[in-house]
Amino acid sequence: MRLSRYYAPTLKEDPADAEVVSHKLLMRAGMIRKLTSGIYNYLPLGLRSINKVARIIREEMDRAGAMEVLLPMVQPADLWRETGRWDYYGKELLRLNDRNGRDYCLGPTHEEVITDLVRGEIKSYKQLPINLYQIQTKFRDEIRPRFGLMRGREFIMKDAYSFDKDEAGAEASYWAMFEAYKAAFARIGLRFKPVQADSGAIGGDFSHEFMVLADTGEDTIASCKSCEFGANLEKARVVLPEGTPNASGTPCPEIEARATPGAKTIEEVCTFLSVEPQKLIKSLLLTIDGEETVLALVRGDRELNDIKLRNLVGGNEIEMADEATVQEKTGAPVGFAGPVGLPEGLRIFADQELCTGTDWVVGANKADTHLLHVSLERDCTIEQFADLRVIEETDPCPECGGEVEFTKGIEVGHVFKLGLKYSEKMEATFLDENGKSKHMIMGCYGIGVSRIVASAIEQNHDENGCCFPPSIAPFEVALISLGGKDQDVADKAEELYTEIMKMGIDACYDDRKERPGVKFADADLVGYPMQLVLGGKGLKNGIIEAKDRKTGEKSELPLEGFAEAFVAWRKKIWSQWGLDL
Amino acid sequence: MRLSRYYAPTLKEDPADAEVVSHKLLMRAGMIRKLTSGIYNYLPLGLRSINKVARIIREEMDRAGAMEVLLPMVQPADLWRETGRWDYYGKELLRLNDRNGRDYCLGPTHEEVITDLVRGEIKSYKQLPINLYQIQTKFRDEIRPRFGLMRGREFIMKDAYSFDKDEAGAEASYWAMFEAYKAAFARIGLRFKPVQADSGAIGGDFSHEFMVLADTGEDTIASCKSCEFGANLEKARVVLPEGTPNASGTPCPEIEARATPGAKTIEEVCTFLSVEPQKLIKSLLLTIDGEETVLALVRGDRELNDIKLRNLVGGNEIEMADEATVQEKTGAPVGFAGPVGLPEGLRIFADQELCTGTDWVVGANKADTHLLHVSLERDCTIEQFADLRVIEETDPCPECGGEVEFTKGIEVGHVFKLGLKYSEKMEATFLDENGKSKHMIMGCYGIGVSRIVASAIEQNHDENGCCFPPSIAPFEVALISLGGKDQDVADKAEELYTEIMKMGIDACYDDRKERPGVKFADADLVGYPMQLVLGGKGLKNGIIEAKDRKTGEKSELPLEGFAEAFVAWRKKIWSQWGLDL
Repeated sequence: MRLSRYYAPTLKEDPADAEVVSHKLLMRAGMIRKLTSGIYNYLPLGLRSINKVARIIREEMDRAGAMEVLLPMVQPADLWRETGRWDYYGKELLRLNDRNGRDYCLGPTHEEVITDLVRGEIKSYKQLPINLYQIQTKFRDEIRPRFGLMRGREFIMKDAYSFDKDEAGAEASYWAMFEAYKAAFARIGLRFKPVQADSGAIGGDFSHEFMVLADTGEDTIASCKSCEFGANLEKARVVLPEGTPNASGTPCPEIEARATPGAKTIEEVCTFLSVEPQKLIKSLLLTIDGEETVLALVRGDRELNDIKLRNLVGGNEIEMADEATVQEKTGAPVGFAGPVGLPEGLRIFADQELCTGTDWVVGANKADTHLLHVSLERDCTIEQFADLRVIEETDPCPECGGEVEFTKGIEVGHVFKLGLKYSEKMEATFLDENGKSKHMIMGCYGIGVSRIVASAIEQNHDENGCCFPPSIAPFEVALISLGGKDQDVADKAEELYTEIMKMGIDACYDDRKERPGVKFADADLVGYPMQLVLGGKGLKNGIIEAKDRKTGEKSELPLEGFAEAFVAWRKKIWSQWGLDL
Repeated sequence: MRLSRYYAPTLKEDPADAEVVSHKLLMRAGMIRKLTSGIYNYLPLGLRSINKVARIIREEMDRAGAMEVLLPMVQPADLWRETGRWDYYGKELLRLNDRNGRDYCLGPTHEEVITDLVRGEIKSYKQLPINLYQIQTKFRDEIRPRFGLMRGREFIMKDAYSFDKDEAGAEASYWAMFEAYKAAFARIGLRFKPVQADSGAIGGDFSHEFMVLADTGEDTIASCKSCEFGANLEKARVVLPEGTPNASGTPCPEIEARATPGAKTIEEVCTFLSVEPQKLIKSLLLTIDGEETVLALVRGDRELNDIKLRNLVGGNEIEMADEATVQEKTGAPVGFAGPVGLPEGLRIFADQELCTGTDWVVGANKADTHLLHVSLERDCTIEQFADLRVIEETDPCPECGGEVEFTKGIEVGHVFKLGLKYSEKMEATFLDENGKSKHMIMGCYGIGVSRIVASAIEQNHDENGCCFPPSIAPFEVALISLGGKDQDVADKAEELYTEIMKMGIDACYDDRKERPGVKFADADLVGYPMQLVLGGKGLKNGIIEAKDRKTGEKSELPLEGFAEAFVAWRKKIWSQWGLDL
């Protein structure tokens, strides 16, 4: 590509509405342009990166035996009504009507459509397993689109769906996708980690997220320093350190009510009563799907993990009870709820950790009052003790007991074992070996294709711009000619450009009539991994300057015998990214 | 690909709702499945063909200097309001609201979005020309979706948009696309013809359609047997044969009113009065955009071309006047309108041919009455004589005077010279060499990617199924193993399959446990251009049977030295399609 004729409009200034670095750099490097909130045009450079990512994913999906299809973006509401998601999905589902007034939506995901397709065709266990995928533009009407390609409304996604005849097959399909994802992300050149995750609105049995590691990531990952364990914070199990004694039967002084005027928060109560937060129990009143109200207990210094509570109690939406409900259920204003003396039938769920202690301070269900010396065993009826809190770095690894550390990540992939959730609702059945009708067991597997490009930048950038891995850079090589009007330099550059293209390596040849500074700045901004500079003294001495964009390291390549030296240097750059050529 | 593990569900019966052959065969061959009216799932085989078509188009677009981008499918209404198309486009534009109630549409075409993008970036003549294209799913809410991929609502399109600083540049951009289209369609392997076309709702200065020639085509093309001329019927100019005399001044008997009770049609009047239709004038009352009413005159045996009338008179929509209007304007019921004695101000447009004769029979603007011996020159006020009728096969070629013939075609591409239509309305300007602000001159260029696959089938099929050109067949080669349980045959087939794949040729290996008849039928149905059959006596004698799907011609390829013989045979097959390898 000759830059003088290419559409790559770079910007000197960060756009005003860009909050994160990938958004700023994608705009400044001329890779995307905003059409409207959360909806972007992909310019030639941006689309090239996206296409390289898509190609790697496609190759790994094909290798894993998945077959590419393309499903419609406009989907009839009837299918979504079959699964109940027409009502459940909420406002993120963009709904519309055709000229005849029929209900449709823009596909945010394709479980319904694919299940409808497969149930019409697959009749026998002999046709299973099957795994179909597509790479397609999706739409989710995000309440707060932001961060450029990180959380857009219209985005490009790879989604795959597997159908199996039994559990063993479904697990095999799941792990085949898991491995294909690992292979794809490795080839893309990103540092990533697969972590255990909650299934959320997609539902199903279990799932993993693939996280690109980046300090700017929105998600926190708990991982183990010793073993392979990794989990999204909301999913990470907490286990008690080995040998933690149960406090059952431990004596506890008699309950004592104490006035705590105005002390509502854990901090205020601790200060007022001069106790450590570890001696307090945080009592949280929550409503499940707007119906049942329950009380959740965690230690004063811990945080409730409401996903864990939801998975324990059931239901879709869990919310903090409003003031009126707190007043009605506890007889006290917010800040003084506690597990002692609540109305019958109000179920109490306690974090497992609370088994290990006694003599607690809790709210008294009375304004400005707390109770001291509470024993959960003696003074309350607990429905269930369970793992209900968010993991902390001081907790042991739930798998090996090793040390846990937190890192930040960006979710770029998600694999789900769906089980029967969709096949039962949509009656996707087959006849097994004995002629018996059974439901197919499904899995679904997504990758945020456009998001990967953004996350590559979040993970790899500096003050001058993007540092793309060579496998997904818009162009691998920037060839910068500094000859000005020197025809000799221009000829050499042209020659070199042709030579590199002939090697099957894509190069951006900056043949513009611009100052050297502008050319260097643009090459750094877009982040071509390899930069070749032609001109001046070096060229006279038969030398081309070669810069590694990521490390800034400069090498000299001879003009004589360029091809060989360049191939060796390129191999070194790729291997620095952990990539094979 | 091993067919035993592939998702290619063939059907024995034509689907009930399929009217045209491409729809039937695409369904039966397992290439598409209907999701809902006009919206289809592309299955693996169908998507492979589409991707091959897309790849050829992409290569030719790149070669012509166009750059690939990807624009959003969801477009804000505001842009469409700028050009007036929000109101003008009608119900084909699928409109929707986001969660905040803002107006959007699903992109049926992207003139607005691309002009908005470019006007924000291009400031100087130095940045022009520019040509951006995309390959993308589009949506048009067709009033009567039908014919499978031929007239769907959701379809895949390549659309390109060029921006130039002057007329010469705009013409160069237009013809570069014209040539790229010719190159692409030739490589796709279809018999096609570029024809002059009307610009229709897209607007602009002039345009060509690219027609795939097929008896089942919806469009009729007029082309010349001697020269390159070709035009869509609605666009084809009619010229009078050289030397046709003008009848001006020719004497004509006096007008005579004659009762023609109940004779309304040309045929009825001719019979009643015992005259040839060539002596009658057909008088058609039409309304322009529901405002003005005009009268159009063509000879009794001719057909009015309302596109020509619209282009002459101006306005968007032209419709036959309703009964009430006819009664009001002519004072007579439908069937008796004529050019004599109409109210003042009602403009009359006459086909040029009517200059060449006199002594006409026309409606009398009175029930059950016609006038004889009418001279348009003497008895009427004609606003304008012009080319207003549909061309006929007996007309001379408008360019060289040669013989015209009609053929049927399917529109698969359309190139438009838009001119200033969008750039003026959306203020897409640049500064020219003298620092003066000017509007960019635009062109737009579309190809129906998914439609090409359907039209390839319309053009190339037989009673057994599709006959795909090798360049866009889902797979080039079908390898059919007839060994049954013979391990030797299976081994040989596996070996051959590997060998073909290593040659970089995509093959479908039918390794299913099916009867030979089923395998042959499926291979013919999908229409792989080359079929290799392994088994039986032939194999024992070291022979593989090779069938050319299109001609049915069978050859024998030796097992020993297979590669060389296969390459030669393949070259022959491709060249039969007019394709280079």
